[in-house]
Amino acid sequence: MDPQQLEQLLERVRGGHTDVHSAMRELRHLPFEDLGFAKVDHHRAMRHGMPEVILGQGKTADQVAGIASALLAKSRNLLVTRGTQDMADQIGEFAPEVEYFPGSGVIRVWRDKTIVGKGKIAAVCAGTSDLPVLQEAQLTAEIMGNQVDTICDVGVAGIHRLLHQRDRLMDARVAIVCAGMEGALPSVVGGLVSCPVIAVPTSVGYGASFNGLAALLGMLNSCASNVTVVNIDNGFGAAYVASLINRL
Amino acid sequence: MDPQQLEQLLERVRGGHTDVHSAMRELRHLPFEDLGFAKVDHHRAMRHGMPEVILGQGKTADQVAGIASALLAKSRNLLVTRGTQDMADQIGEFAPEVEYFPGSGVIRVWRDKTIVGKGKIAAVCAGTSDLPVLQEAQLTAEIMGNQVDTICDVGVAGIHRLLHQRDRLMDARVAIVCAGMEGALPSVVGGLVSCPVIAVPTSVGYGASFNGLAALLGMLNSCASNVTVVNIDNGFGAAYVASLINRL
Amino acid sequence: MDPQQLEQLLERVRGGHTDVHSAMRELRHLPFEDLGFAKVDHHRAMRHGMPEVILGQGKTADQVAGIASALLAKSRNLLVTRGTQDMADQIGEFAPEVEYFPGSGVIRVWRDKTIVGKGKIAAVCAGTSDLPVLQEAQLTAEIMGNQVDTICDVGVAGIHRLLHQRDRLMDARVAIVCAGMEGALPSVVGGLVSCPVIAVPTSVGYGASFNGLAALLGMLNSCASNVTVVNIDNGFGAAYVASLINRL
Amino acid sequence: MDPQQLEQLLERVRGGHTDVHSAMRELRHLPFEDLGFAKVDHHRAMRHGMPEVILGQGKTADQVAGIASALLAKSRNLLVTRGTQDMADQIGEFAPEVEYFPGSGVIRVWRDKTIVGKGKIAAVCAGTSDLPVLQEAQLTAEIMGNQVDTICDVGVAGIHRLLHQRDRLMDARVAIVCAGMEGALPSVVGGLVSCPVIAVPTSVGYGASFNGLAALLGMLNSCASNVTVVNIDNGFGAAYVASLINRL
Amino acid sequence: MDPQQLEQLLERVRGGHTDVHSAMRELRHLPFEDLGFAKVDHHRAMRHGMPEVILGQGKTADQVAGIASALLAKSRNLLVTRGTQDMADQIGEFAPEVEYFPGSGVIRVWRDKTIVGKGKIAAVCAGTSDLPVLQEAQLTAEIMGNQVDTICDVGVAGIHRLLHQRDRLMDARVAIVCAGMEGALPSVVGGLVSCPVIAVPTSVGYGASFNGLAALLGMLNSCASNVTVVNIDNGFGAAYVASLINRL
Amino acid sequence: MDPQQLEQLLERVRGGHTDVHSAMRELRHLPFEDLGFAKVDHHRAMRHGMPEVILGQGKTADQVAGIASALLAKSRNLLVTRGTQDMADQIGEFAPEVEYFPGSGVIRVWRDKTIVGKGKIAAVCAGTSDLPVLQEAQLTAEIMGNQVDTICDVGVAGIHRLLHQRDRLMDARVAIVCAGMEGALPSVVGGLVSCPVIAVPTSVGYGASFNGLAALLGMLNSCASNVTVVNIDNGFGAAYVASLINRL
Amino acid sequence: MDPQQLEQLLERVRGGHTDVHSAMRELRHLPFEDLGFAKVDHHRAMRHGMPEVILGQGKTADQVAGIASALLAKSRNLLVTRGTQDMADQIGEFAPEVEYFPGSGVIRVWRDKTIVGKGKIAAVCAGTSDLPVLQEAQLTAEIMGNQVDTICDVGVAGIHRLLHQRDRLMDARVAIVCAGMEGALPSVVGGLVSCPVIAVPTSVGYGASFNGLAALLGMLNSCASNVTVVNIDNGFGAAYVASLINRL
Amino acid sequence: MDPQQLEQLLERVRGGHTDVHSAMRELRHLPFEDLGFAKVDHHRAMRHGMPEVILGQGKTADQVAGIASALLAKSRNLLVTRGTQDMADQIGEFAPEVEYFPGSGVIRVWRDKTIVGKGKIAAVCAGTSDLPVLQEAQLTAEIMGNQVDTICDVGVAGIHRLLHQRDRLMDARVAIVCAGMEGALPSVVGGLVSCPVIAVPTSVGYGASFNGLAALLGMLNSCASNVTVVNIDNGFGAAYVASLINRL
Repeated sequence: MDPQQLEQLLERVRGGHTDVHSAMRELRHLPFEDLGFAKVDHHRAMRHGMPEVILGQGKTADQVAGIASALLAKSRNLLVTRGTQDMADQIGEFAPEVEYFPGSGVIRVWRDKTIVGKGKIAAVCAGTSDLPVLQEAQLTAEIMGNQVDTICDVGVAGIHRLLHQRDRLMDARVAIVCAGMEGALPSVVGGLVSCPVIAVPTSVGYGASFNGLAALLGMLNSCASNVTVVNIDNGFGAAYVASLINRL
Repeated sequence: MDPQQLEQLLERVRGGHTDVHSAMRELRHLPFEDLGFAKVDHHRAMRHGMPEVILGQGKTADQVAGIASALLAKSRNLLVTRGTQDMADQIGEFAPEVEYFPGSGVIRVWRDKTIVGKGKIAAVCAGTSDLPVLQEAQLTAEIMGNQVDTICDVGVAGIHRLLHQRDRLMDARVAIVCAGMEGALPSVVGGLVSCPVIAVPTSVGYGASFNGLAALLGMLNSCASNVTVVNIDNGFGAAYVASLINRL
Repeated sequence: MDPQQLEQLLERVRGGHTDVHSAMRELRHLPFEDLGFAKVDHHRAMRHGMPEVILGQGKTADQVAGIASALLAKSRNLLVTRGTQDMADQIGEFAPEVEYFPGSGVIRVWRDKTIVGKGKIAAVCAGTSDLPVLQEAQLTAEIMGNQVDTICDVGVAGIHRLLHQRDRLMDARVAIVCAGMEGALPSVVGGLVSCPVIAVPTSVGYGASFNGLAALLGMLNSCASNVTVVNIDNGFGAAYVASLINRL
Repeated sequence: MDPQQLEQLLERVRGGHTDVHSAMRELRHLPFEDLGFAKVDHHRAMRHGMPEVILGQGKTADQVAGIASALLAKSRNLLVTRGTQDMADQIGEFAPEVEYFPGSGVIRVWRDKTIVGKGKIAAVCAGTSDLPVLQEAQLTAEIMGNQVDTICDVGVAGIHRLLHQRDRLMDARVAIVCAGMEGALPSVVGGLVSCPVIAVPTSVGYGASFNGLAALLGMLNSCASNVTVVNIDNGFGAAYVASLINRL
Repeated sequence: MDPQQLEQLLERVRGGHTDVHSAMRELRHLPFEDLGFAKVDHHRAMRHGMPEVILGQGKTADQVAGIASALLAKSRNLLVTRGTQDMADQIGEFAPEVEYFPGSGVIRVWRDKTIVGKGKIAAVCAGTSDLPVLQEAQLTAEIMGNQVDTICDVGVAGIHRLLHQRDRLMDARVAIVCAGMEGALPSVVGGLVSCPVIAVPTSVGYGASFNGLAALLGMLNSCASNVTVVNIDNGFGAAYVASLINRL
Repeated sequence: MDPQQLEQLLERVRGGHTDVHSAMRELRHLPFEDLGFAKVDHHRAMRHGMPEVILGQGKTADQVAGIASALLAKSRNLLVTRGTQDMADQIGEFAPEVEYFPGSGVIRVWRDKTIVGKGKIAAVCAGTSDLPVLQEAQLTAEIMGNQVDTICDVGVAGIHRLLHQRDRLMDARVAIVCAGMEGALPSVVGGLVSCPVIAVPTSVGYGASFNGLAALLGMLNSCASNVTVVNIDNGFGAAYVASLINRL
Repeated sequence: MDPQQLEQLLERVRGGHTDVHSAMRELRHLPFEDLGFAKVDHHRAMRHGMPEVILGQGKTADQVAGIASALLAKSRNLLVTRGTQDMADQIGEFAPEVEYFPGSGVIRVWRDKTIVGKGKIAAVCAGTSDLPVLQEAQLTAEIMGNQVDTICDVGVAGIHRLLHQRDRLMDARVAIVCAGMEGALPSVVGGLVSCPVIAVPTSVGYGASFNGLAALLGMLNSCASNVTVVNIDNGFGAAYVASLINRL
Repeated sequence: MDPQQLEQLLERVRGGHTDVHSAMRELRHLPFEDLGFAKVDHHRAMRHGMPEVILGQGKTADQVAGIASALLAKSRNLLVTRGTQDMADQIGEFAPEVEYFPGSGVIRVWRDKTIVGKGKIAAVCAGTSDLPVLQEAQLTAEIMGNQVDTICDVGVAGIHRLLHQRDRLMDARVAIVCAGMEGALPSVVGGLVSCPVIAVPTSVGYGASFNGLAALLGMLNSCASNVTVVNIDNGFGAAYVASLINRL
């Protein structure tokens, strides 16, 4: 039932052609979601700043390009995660300013660079192998309208390098911390700052890292109370939540 | 907004006190579930034959008795799973026909014994240690209006005992098969019958049974195509689905 | 001992050449399965509507084509799961109406399209990445003689899209629900419908999805009582059981 | 080296008794943390609103009472998680307004009830068995100066009950969602609201819930992008982070 | 159909009251297992030397005593594994020679001590904590008619103690080796002897032994080719197979 | 110290050039293994019937050919497991009768075909996908001097096909049973025969088979007491132990 | 063969009653371990400083007291790990200076307090809940003749407290670091010091700590290269190795 | 703040331009790490004997060559682990004496061959498949200035081969023991020697070795008290710690 149908029903009530109880019965069986439920989605779009992100993984380049084209018709910015050069090339045909970041597989069309976040997001990683995940987080946070301060190579086994960056960390309104191997960095950062820390375990490591499981478990058991965790290698998710927090 | 509110709104439309577009706007913001959504629940109650089951685990005897009392006010039958003698005693004060089955912890008030299932449900288990789970399945299936044919002690290492029961198995419209240890029984039963088989792994075993994990994995990998699986020790769930199938 | 042997034995009894007790002793040692046990298989074939399905995985194209040729000699329809283009090509040489579905790897020869299922099977999936598993389920259910209503892209994080399809879901006699990642969709669908729900965890996801383990565990722990579960990515198995249920 | 030592060193420089390079050498070897580092802790206390929380688990009642006494000397409020009645009794001797909550084991001395959070925190749980974890979250969030809106018994298998609470959910600035079994609730809530959602897996369930592992994995794989996760049963941690967010 | 029915059928054939084809049809539908299949069980009993063993775990003392009483009516020997003092006491009322071994929980009525094994079974364990499992193996092997040579406290970290026993090991026709912790003993023993080695992982250990999982995995990966493995703590199963081998 | 040294020492004793206590002290410090310990290896070779098997995995074709050449200098038969065509080709240059079996990767030089096993070894598998593992077992058992009776495609979901082979199974002195997926076949075979059964889990399956883990756990928890287990896909190990048993 | 036998053999050689080759043959078959192999044990005792430690777990108080009495007859010091008050009381009857430490369950008779370690061992733990494991390490290291510097409550979320102790850490020749939860402390300590660090995961934590698994995996994946790991809660083992290192 | 800034501050104090309390306040806020903290790193370099090692995994050849070039500017020796031929070739352009070891992937520039270790390091492995890990350990230990005694092919199933090497093992000051499959070798070696043993589980094996997990768990549960463990395949880490120990 679309609005026209609802309008007709109410017109019939108004005109006396349908009595109140029949109308009630009819309304009661309406698929509720047609009664404006889509407005929720609309709200979501407005508040979140961008309508949708494309997860490239498991899609063909044609599919991604198709979706991208449709999304760019109603939005200035676009983000594809886990994408390929081929996808980027196809998108470039109708969005020449497209950027492709091979390390993380992120594809970005970033036309509207308005800053909507109220403070800075610190994006921190332990080692150079964690950079792809950090990059996904950084690019996501940027396109969602945040100032991002990226701090790299501050693993816990060289604690002074991390402490050296304490001021930058304490300037952040929310911190994203990516780490593989033992995944200890979020706990240490969490103890240094008083803002929320979003921990991203990465699949960096070998042997008993079990593709990020060790880091994930470590972060879930963090002794720092201001740490929450997202899925292994989920830089996007961390940046998404950090962006929401930074708009509060 | 309850029906009275809706009625008043429509009356206002009918009387010309509210125009159609204002009414539409108002309706669009209604919490949809007040527009008859509860009817779904009502339907569910009618179709399922009994309104609700109480999971005794994690509740006090007082809590269970309170809920039971409320439920028995609108339903003749009642089932409590993972209950205790104390819970049964308290229920017995207002429902003297209550039965308590210590093996499975099931508490049952079974007044309405109408058979609604179209055929028989076979409830099978491998060994005597699986009996508590079988009992939960059997009692659930019975109170949901099914004829239940219980077949015990037919483990796969004594295949002739199982084959001896082939006729009873083939008479069933749906079969529930409980097994611990290696959990192989559902595969063998699945090959003997052509009806749906619902496999219930039990936590019976020790060592590498890992509290039912071995049986669970075995059943999920069954080479018999007519097998689906429920959670470890979930005799109730198996009987619930079997009852739904048996009413079709 | 084949029927001829049995006939001869009985003739000897009838003619007085063998006394009753000798005949009994002889019968007692017969391999029982020669006494008509194969009839069970025959029954199975009749009841299930199709004799056998070929699992393409781990077989060569030659092997699959050989088996397919033999099966098509006694059956009009044929299904190969986890097959390849090469297998389909070889089958196409003697069965030109063969269809190949690259997404799911299903090969299908569908000549007899008689509907034997009594109602509709709803086949639901959460996201586009789950489509290959959904397709395997859909194609299986169709060739087994069912009307299949396919509902896609109704993940739980956009609950209104799922609710929008509530009528179609409630029309189904049995529902197949495929989902990866957190595998929550079967619980939500299970709460909306009152028919049996067969949940299929998919290996869609990354990191802590552990190739479908997260979805599998989620579905096994479903708080909806009408949910049973099959193996990860086992769209075929779900459709097989759904077909059995839909014939009841 | 305490401040007095530093002062003396500088006095010696000022008075010419120590030359600059000797002072530099001396300063360079100072344990840096004596140079005001403790101020960080002080800052932390000021910003976080309460100095420290006692984890009762693994401590004797005497130990907890001793620590509590010391903490209450410099702070008006106190929180003990995973505590016992005995601990509460001992604290009651010097803090008569102590409250003990047996469900969650929380002990609370709540004298300063100033609201510092800018909005409401929604604290949601799926079933009554999740209440102890929800309670820990609620009590923590309250003592940290937040308005908390508690919404219970809105499991995903009865989606209409959850949708009924949509307005309350959308009013929240941050949501805490506790769920055991399949842990699907945070995904659904995450799709309904646009604020950050902190998911708390609970150890509620049996069999393949593996003491909360199923829920944990489900939440980490949430298809809703605004969900982060804390440890199993960690209601305190979720509320702590929610409080930090709510002060932004 | 019992033998009488078969006899009557054949009499009818012999008397001409039933023709051959009708008889064949009737026979074809006989439950085969009534045609002497039970004889298999009988054979099994004769060959194995003892009819059945009672697993005490999960049974009441009354149940165990009842089964024991029935078994002792047709067998001179009896074995109960994972039994209790109470079970032993009840059995003692009708079998005064009953023995109870609290370490392993074995109850034994050992009247017929005939040796049927052709050689010696070596039963070896690594440390004193493994003794309960070793005892279960030893008592089982003895009651099944074997000479058992028990060798204790020969852990791999004191390899000379094991080598000191090399002659006794090499005298054995089959060896049972129980070990917890790292479970390395079967590999070393397997390298010293040329007979089959049955490895029993024990749940001895703590931390990363994960209740015997470490030992189990170690034994399954043994670099000695003559090692097979049974379940954790399954001394009975190891002795059962060793007995079968020793009779060959 | 080689025998010459020992001889010289003893000569010195005999000639009175070294007194007894000096000789004892010297002997006491001898590396014991030089005192004939290698003889153990020699014995092993004699008893086992073949000196050594080459595990091809992780070696280059050159390495394997080199070892094979050395081994064939002192032994007529040779077995390489997990080998490649290239390895077989190189071996064929000096051992033209070499056979290569691509399914299992076994390379075999089988010149001495003497039967030393006292009875038959049954080698059984559930489905055609298990054939590579079965083949490894069969080829190993043959080259170790056993008659092997191979029985294929007798999965537990078609129990009649297995029962049809009961006589062949009961003729075996020891049985090897390979199965993937739920791994139930060894339990059923174990119940039908009274000889030792060696179960080989195979990595056949998908999803929750977890590369053979499901089958492995199932077999370790077998309710048939005559079952022991080897590593996943370890057809060689099963045949090795079966050969040892068959020589007893 | 004991030394007397060897002496007699050599006397026979010396006296010409046995020729050299017969003697060689005889010697070659000697059980080598009788030729002075026990000396290895003796050496071990001398070098390690104490002959043996009793693992109390899984033993009765009588058994422990018996072993303790025997050990104290030849050694001045004694250590029992995972012991009970009852064990300590019984030991106290013949060793009045016995100490019992209920936190860790250590029983110690420490008469010879000679320091044999060349430097200090730092024993560090993250939180008060880790104290029992730290205590086991400290008491073991002390009785093995080491100076132990114990540093507590220096968790990584309060990094300044740890840095405050840097001088004490850098004074150590080897460090033992105990930590539960995320187990990050060894990595941070490892980065601060240049001596070997022995990491002890503790079972402190809840939920996804999985009884110390999270800490264990974290430590195994440490990004600090000077870290090795022992079993969960194995304070004794860490101190044992630290003592060996400290004597070098 | 660099030293110049500190110097200026102190000059201001000395000259009376800044009073003591202002200086103190200023110093208190200094980033402490600028006060000479980097000296720690310097010390580390001096003590450890080589500044840094490059983990090749996850880096491009260009990146590795760039870092190598920078490192070789201040150090004579260089080690790259998990490197490729391409990386070695690029390094060879500016360091012609570079060596590449394809088995382990180690790249080494070894100009300064001074021995700084006080004794020998024994590097032991069980089988030829463990050689790559052993090689990584050996090459690391050598470049860190140690004499390394490599002992191969001494698996526990051929214990005499290991015992044959006892003298070499006992000569070592510290032992590195690499083993896959059941990982039992460190326990046996640990019992033979009295020095510290560093166990390296390798990913050698198949099936239930789970890529080294079986060996890892075995080693963590070693019954030899002188064993500590590093990550799977971490030959580098073992050699690093062994080198630290050997310098004590």
